[in-house]
Amino acid sequence: MASHHLRLFSAPAFSQQSAASTSTAADRWALARIQQAVFSARVRFVLWDGFELQVSRGEPVATLVFKNRRALLATMWHPDLHLGDAYMSGAIEISGDLVAMLNDVYHALGQRSPRPWWLDGSNGPSDARANVHRHYDLGNDFYRLWLDREMVYTCAYFPTPGESLEAAQVAKMHLVCRKLALKPGDRVIEAGCGWGSLALFMARHYGVQVRAFNLSPEQIAVARRRARDESLASRVEFIEDDYRNLHGEYDAFVSVGMLEHVGRASYGALGEVIARSLTEHGRGLLHFIGRSQPGALNPWIRKRIFPGAYIPTLTEVFERVLEPWDLSALDVENLRLHYASTLDHWRQRFEGASAEIAAMFDDSFVRAWRLYLAGSQAAFTAGSLHLFQIVFARGSCNTIPWTRST
Amino acid sequence: MASHHLRLFSAPAFSQQSAASTSTAADRWALARIQQAVFSARVRFVLWDGFELQVSRGEPVATLVFKNRRALLATMWHPDLHLGDAYMSGAIEISGDLVAMLNDVYHALGQRSPRPWWLDGSNGPSDARANVHRHYDLGNDFYRLWLDREMVYTCAYFPTPGESLEAAQVAKMHLVCRKLALKPGDRVIEAGCGWGSLALFMARHYGVQVRAFNLSPEQIAVARRRARDESLASRVEFIEDDYRNLHGEYDAFVSVGMLEHVGRASYGALGEVIARSLTEHGRGLLHFIGRSQPGALNPWIRKRIFPGAYIPTLTEVFERVLEPWDLSALDVENLRLHYASTLDHWRQRFEGASAEIAAMFDDSFVRAWRLYLAGSQAAFTAGSLHLFQIVFARGSCNTIPWTRST
Repeated sequence: MASHHLRLFSAPAFSQQSAASTSTAADRWALARIQQAVFSARVRFVLWDGFELQVSRGEPVATLVFKNRRALLATMWHPDLHLGDAYMSGAIEISGDLVAMLNDVYHALGQRSPRPWWLDGSNGPSDARANVHRHYDLGNDFYRLWLDREMVYTCAYFPTPGESLEAAQVAKMHLVCRKLALKPGDRVIEAGCGWGSLALFMARHYGVQVRAFNLSPEQIAVARRRARDESLASRVEFIEDDYRNLHGEYDAFVSVGMLEHVGRASYGALGEVIARSLTEHGRGLLHFIGRSQPGALNPWIRKRIFPGAYIPTLTEVFERVLEPWDLSALDVENLRLHYASTLDHWRQRFEGASAEIAAMFDDSFVRAWRLYLAGSQAAFTAGSLHLFQIVFARGSCNTIPWTRST
Repeated sequence: MASHHLRLFSAPAFSQQSAASTSTAADRWALARIQQAVFSARVRFVLWDGFELQVSRGEPVATLVFKNRRALLATMWHPDLHLGDAYMSGAIEISGDLVAMLNDVYHALGQRSPRPWWLDGSNGPSDARANVHRHYDLGNDFYRLWLDREMVYTCAYFPTPGESLEAAQVAKMHLVCRKLALKPGDRVIEAGCGWGSLALFMARHYGVQVRAFNLSPEQIAVARRRARDESLASRVEFIEDDYRNLHGEYDAFVSVGMLEHVGRASYGALGEVIARSLTEHGRGLLHFIGRSQPGALNPWIRKRIFPGAYIPTLTEVFERVLEPWDLSALDVENLRLHYASTLDHWRQRFEGASAEIAAMFDDSFVRAWRLYLAGSQAAFTAGSLHLFQIVFARGSCNTIPWTRST
C-alpha cells in the first residue's frame, strides 16, 4: 500500500541539486520577479545563501526560502505547478502562517485571465476509476486521522461559526435532506457516496431507501460494513460502479462532492442520467466546488492531488447538466466560508497527526497535503473557489416546496 | 392618451371578413391540424358554421370558436402570433376556463425545440425608452384598477398560499430587503423602480438612502409625489433616466422586474454598471422572469404587450451579467408558483374591472390583456416560465451572511 503511494507522491528532483553556490545577480532578479508577481503579499522571500527581499509594507506573515537555484527558476517559470512540487520536495521551505500567506497570494494575483478550458481532460469510465482510486484509496486509516467521526470528506455546514466539525457535518447532512424534502419510503439515488455517511444518515433519520454509487473499493468496503453494523443493509445498497450505469426510477437524486471529478466532457452524460432516473415529481441536489469564472484547476493540485478534477462555474452546470434536460433550479446556496472553516478543522487535525502520517507515507506526502489543505482554505477564503448546492426539479413539477420554511 | 393606445392595440383585420360561408373540407382539415398540435388539451374546437371537434378524452375545460376562415388559417400557420391577435380582434372566441385551457396547451406543447435567439432585438437607450413607454405609460389609472394598494407590478411572495395580494407584496419587499441584508445608512441603487413602492419601502422600513431609476415619466411622477407625501423625498431620489447612466458607489444594487426588458445584447452593459457601482462589500439582487431553456418570448406577447422583452435562462444571466465581472452568486430562489398566484389575483381584479377598462380603451384591449394575464398564469403554472431571485456579491467579499438565518 504505502509503496504505491510513495511512488505517486515521490518527491520531484528539486532537492537533488547542491545548494553550495552563492546567489548571482540573475538569481536575485528571478527572486524579484517572483515577488513582483505577488507584490502585496506579506511574504519575505529568501535565497539559499541568505539573500532576502523584505515585504513591501507591514510585517511578513510568512518566510519562503528557496533552497536551490533549480527550485527558484522553476517557480519563476511556472509557479502554479512548480512551487507545489518544490515545497513538497523540501527545496522550498515556508515558515510562518501558510494559510495567511496563500490568502495574500490569491488576493495579489486577483482576477487573472482565465486559463484555457482545454486543459480539462476527459473522464471516461476507466479514467474515472483510476482517478478516484488515486485519491480515495490512500487508505481509510489516513483519512480517519483527520476527518470527523462520520468520515465526511466534503464541506460541512456550521449553524454558527464556532460549531464543532462533528456537529457541522451532521448539520450539513440534515440541510441536504431538508432541501430534498425527503419523506419516509422515498427511493433515493446517490452518485459518489464516499464512506457512505450520507446514505446511511438518510436511511436512519429520514426513513428512505438508498442506492449509493462509488468507484472506490476501499470506501465501498467500509460503507458496506457500516450498513451491516447499523442494521441498515436492507435499506441502503452500496454499489461499486460508475454512476452512469445506474438504472431505475427514484424520488430523489443526490450527489455531494462528486461533480468536481466528473469532468466537463461528461456533464451531458450526468444530466442524462439524472433526467432518466428521476420520477415526474423527483427532486435533485448537486453539492460541488465551483468558481465564479471558468478556468482550469490549479495544475499542481490536478497533478498531485486530484487527477481528472475540473471545477465548474454555475453557468457550466446549468448549461450542460440541467437545462438540456429541462431540469430547473429551485434553490442555489453558496457555502464557501463554510468550506474555509471545514478546511481549517481538517488542517489542524492533519497537523496534529503529521508525525503519524509521515510514518505512513513520507515527509513529502505530508508537505504536499499541507499545501493542498492550506491552499484550499485560502482559495475559499479569498473567493477563488465557492461551494454551491443546487436544488432542482423537472420544469413542470408543481410538488415543489412552497417556501424555504415549508 | 386613449387614442394613442387605441392605435397600439387596434384590432387586427381578422374581424373584417364575412363569416357567412359554410366550412369546407380544407377548413376542417386545418382545424384538425390545430387540434393535433395540442392533442391532449381539453379544448373543444368549433368553426363558424358549427362544425366541431370534441376533446380527445374527458370533459372540455373550454370552447374555442373560429369566427372566420382567415383567423383559422392564420392560427394554423403561426399559432404563437396569430391566435392572440385573432382572439384580441374577436375573430376567435373562447368560453370556459381560459387559464386551464392555456395550461393544458403549454403541457401539450411540452418541450418544443427552442426558438432561435436572434429573434431578440437590441435595446439601446432610445429603444428602451420607447418600449417602456408603450407598456408602463398606459395610464396609472389603468394599473390602479387591478394592482395592489402599493402598486407593485412584479411577482409577490405569499408566506402561505392563502395570503392576500396586499400582504404578499409587502412580504416580497421584506424578503428582498432581508436578502440584501440592508442596514440603516446603506446607499442603495434601484434599477427599474416602477411606481417607487420598493424604494420608498426600503427607506421607510430599513433606513436606507435610495436612488431609483426608471424610464417611464408617468411612473416617476407618481413615485415623486409619494416620496413627498410620505416625507421621504430627502432619502429617496427618483431619476427619470436609463440605468446605464448611473454614477457613484453603493452598498446595494437591486433590480426587481427590469431584466426582462434589458435584452440580451445589453446584459454585459448591465453587469458593467453593477460592477462599477458596488462597493467592495456591496450586495446585489436581481429579481426576474426566467426560463429553464433558452428561447424567444412568445411573439404575440412581444408584439402586443412587451416590445423588446427577452426572458433569459439562469445560464445567460450568470454568463453575461455576473461572471464577467467576478460577481458571484450567494443565493438563488425560484418563486414561479408565487407568480402564478400573483397573476391569479391580478387577473381576477382585472376581470372585475373589465367594464371600466373597456370604457378606458376598448374591447380588443381587454381581450389582449385577458389573454396576456391568463397565458402568463398558465406559463408559470406549467413551468414554461420561472421567477428567479439571485443574490450576489463580489467574489472576494467576505462580509456575506453566514447562513440564511443570520
